[in-house]
Amino acid sequence: MGYGRVGGTPSTARSTVTIAPTSPAAVDDIVRAAAAAGAEWKRASVAARVAALGAVADGLDAAADDLVPIAQRETHLAEARLRGELRRTTFQLRMFGEMLEDGAWFDARIDHADPQWPMGAPRPDLRRVLEPIGPVLVFAASNFPFAFSVAGGDTASALAAGNAVVLKAHHGHPELSAATAAVVEGALRGAGAPDGVFAIIYGTDAGVRALQAPAVKAAAFTGSVTGGRALFDIAQARPEPIPFFGELGSTNPAFVTRRAADRDPAALAADYLASVTGSAGQLCTKPGVILVPAGSELLAALGGQQLPAATPLLNDGIEQGYRAAVARTAAVDGVRTIAGTVSEDESAPVVFATTAERLAAEMDTLMAEMFGPAALVVAYEDEADLVDIARRLEGQLTATVFAEPDDEIAAALVPVLAEKAGRVLWNQWPTGVSVTWAQQHGGPYPATTAVGTTSVGMAAISRFLRPVAYQNLPDALLPDALKEANPLRIPRRVDGELVLP
Amino acid sequence: MGYGRVGGTPSTARSTVTIAPTSPAAVDDIVRAAAAAGAEWKRASVAARVAALGAVADGLDAAADDLVPIAQRETHLAEARLRGELRRTTFQLRMFGEMLEDGAWFDARIDHADPQWPMGAPRPDLRRVLEPIGPVLVFAASNFPFAFSVAGGDTASALAAGNAVVLKAHHGHPELSAATAAVVEGALRGAGAPDGVFAIIYGTDAGVRALQAPAVKAAAFTGSVTGGRALFDIAQARPEPIPFFGELGSTNPAFVTRRAADRDPAALAADYLASVTGSAGQLCTKPGVILVPAGSELLAALGGQQLPAATPLLNDGIEQGYRAAVARTAAVDGVRTIAGTVSEDESAPVVFATTAERLAAEMDTLMAEMFGPAALVVAYEDEADLVDIARRLEGQLTATVFAEPDDEIAAALVPVLAEKAGRVLWNQWPTGVSVTWAQQHGGPYPATTAVGTTSVGMAAISRFLRPVAYQNLPDALLPDALKEANPLRIPRRVDGELVLP
Repeated sequence: MGYGRVGGTPSTARSTVTIAPTSPAAVDDIVRAAAAAGAEWKRASVAARVAALGAVADGLDAAADDLVPIAQRETHLAEARLRGELRRTTFQLRMFGEMLEDGAWFDARIDHADPQWPMGAPRPDLRRVLEPIGPVLVFAASNFPFAFSVAGGDTASALAAGNAVVLKAHHGHPELSAATAAVVEGALRGAGAPDGVFAIIYGTDAGVRALQAPAVKAAAFTGSVTGGRALFDIAQARPEPIPFFGELGSTNPAFVTRRAADRDPAALAADYLASVTGSAGQLCTKPGVILVPAGSELLAALGGQQLPAATPLLNDGIEQGYRAAVARTAAVDGVRTIAGTVSEDESAPVVFATTAERLAAEMDTLMAEMFGPAALVVAYEDEADLVDIARRLEGQLTATVFAEPDDEIAAALVPVLAEKAGRVLWNQWPTGVSVTWAQQHGGPYPATTAVGTTSVGMAAISRFLRPVAYQNLPDALLPDALKEANPLRIPRRVDGELVLP
Repeated sequence: MGYGRVGGTPSTARSTVTIAPTSPAAVDDIVRAAAAAGAEWKRASVAARVAALGAVADGLDAAADDLVPIAQRETHLAEARLRGELRRTTFQLRMFGEMLEDGAWFDARIDHADPQWPMGAPRPDLRRVLEPIGPVLVFAASNFPFAFSVAGGDTASALAAGNAVVLKAHHGHPELSAATAAVVEGALRGAGAPDGVFAIIYGTDAGVRALQAPAVKAAAFTGSVTGGRALFDIAQARPEPIPFFGELGSTNPAFVTRRAADRDPAALAADYLASVTGSAGQLCTKPGVILVPAGSELLAALGGQQLPAATPLLNDGIEQGYRAAVARTAAVDGVRTIAGTVSEDESAPVVFATTAERLAAEMDTLMAEMFGPAALVVAYEDEADLVDIARRLEGQLTATVFAEPDDEIAAALVPVLAEKAGRVLWNQWPTGVSVTWAQQHGGPYPATTAVGTTSVGMAAISRFLRPVAYQNLPDALLPDALKEANPLRIPRRVDGELVLP
């Protein structure tokens, strides 16, 4: 891939830019403007929304050489990773446009009046469609400064659904947030979207104030369990509770059968550790725990590996959290270090090992997420232990099986893991989440606060829509998606039959 | 309609049957059994689920002559109404079966692996399907002893989705609840469903204990704002919060333009009051407030009407609540009684009147639900008042417009009402909610605690499903809905294209 002109080597010092927290009065103004802009934006045609999303993508692509160096400086993530993430981000914006044009997301349903409806009373003419939920508050994440931040998947799907977005910047990359927001705002304005349909706010207090604003109708968040639960609680305690789509922590366990462990132990170990240490382990789908046969070559291969050198993590809070998590794991009886080091001075990659018996005895501690480049290898004696451990899991974003197709234990594992995770993988690693129609990122709590939703993939738009039924309305007053002649040429369910345009 | 043999005139005395509250230990046993049964039930084929739903419907139809008299005695609702409601209930069970066979509810998505995926990294094989959420706790309602109670829409949709159901009986009809549960349990057993897939519990404490049980994964409720919010708060405060699908209160305002008011004032007034007083006004979609032109014939026709005689309401709590609500409305400055009477001794039908100006000044009091046979007529001077009032509404289940298609004010009203209500009606009354593919019952809070969901209509099943994605799985280990050959012959989105079987 040719990235064109790239700025000089960025400094490793963190940003010294400070952006003042948004004042309460300014938050109120922004929310008010978002409500007004949203009322206009929801009436924008599909074509207008597609054009606006495309304009944002084009603007970000054009600004890559300005944005990436700021991101490098503020997050310490590598240039190639950040370039790839920006590409993913603009791809995602354009793909939501493609999905909008398809029109199945309207979930349009038409039941014509039926005097003989067997319920026992005549059926009136009823038509149902999904409409924008209202202004959405998005809390940006630290670990994807493009893809889960200012112009990330939450913003893209909320705008695509026809909502205004208030974006609470992450304190870890303020300068990048401001620069990205300027690109987004300019592109939306250039595409004719109403002023105020997107705005950025700064500071924890500003985020909480916006979360409590009556005009805000939904919120999305990616981050820690502690922070996410606190915001979830605030959202639910409002006089009018609102949906809070939080993607919190996940350990993403991987289960390796005996036969899979024997296939190519050296390659499996190397691939696993690459998945664990990529982006310094700061990925929500990092497979933090791996269960392997005791005494296997794979177990040996996972130990004593040369791990990457320690690099600064995203921000000071994450550095501290990582070191505390590593120390907590290291202190558990029966846990030993088999690769890398535990350091109080730097966030060094480290691989721990223990037994399935010890894991079962210390599930809460040992299955807790270590956000950063750490992993726990668990040696099992009996493959049946895999199912026992799986049954005791909390909710996960992902769960991974390495096995042969005719491994009996794998057939038993998959349905158990499907109850615990949003995504179940087979002989592949969970990092590098693809943006597709079928992707599912959210899993049961605490992986996600709103079970049944996803922040990645085309289904993400469903979070920001709500259904409205129209009974007996004149055709001219119906939304276009429900008009008899199907002017948008979308798939619809008509009198119970799914009909393609 | 011939109903066959009907028992003698039922007594108007309430049931004297007392059913002991379910003990904490029994609740725990029931929840444990539900979890075990659910794990089996989720693997039942679509055909097995359809057969089970049909068996429940057949069982209820066959037991009608036993169940209806109990319902009459315990609820004071009329026989014809109860027979119709039971018919609606069994129709609904069978219709969910029809929907299961269609298979679109799986929302099956298949993305084949694509090495050239333009995101910048190869796309793995990803397949996504909706699976059962887990055991569902259903709180029965008082006002629909069949359709929103033991075998009502919540139970039907949760079972259809593949979940076990724990049903908390409503204290207003305990004997009917026990009799209905016996029919449901027998029918399910006869159809081969696992023991424990449906069970009934009694008592407020038992309901709260079940709501806090870790194995319960979702709850549904129909009832008052006070009770529903208290249970919602419990569900959200759990260590693992769960979705709480509460249908709470709604005033369901109706807006009548000048021209609509002039069409046939006498008929409109009579039809409105029939909608208000049917089932003694104990319907969640009762149009409790109507806005009509000041000085119109319609306003005159709404006053001085002969209303039905007072009848006992569903239970003592509802009697007390009704009388308190009526007294609260009567005490508001500028409110007068134009038909019926305000009584402290019985729950008499009554129609109040006030002005749009007074309504605007006392929105909280005058737009509060009066559950029972009461209505408030609001006289407006200016049609523009209709839009002003609409903008200030809380969330509603329904909002109704009576107008001519070319009334300019109606075109302005409809989009405002669509933001406030789950269903917008035109020249029809909202009571008599039809069960169809396109029906939408839930509206924004406080009409519903989970915005974007419905308890009536085929979309009700979505509440009790959660998505799981499978990455790179061998075909044999995939759920049938995702297997390459499409053995269930269902609609699926394949590589972004919606494909019919």
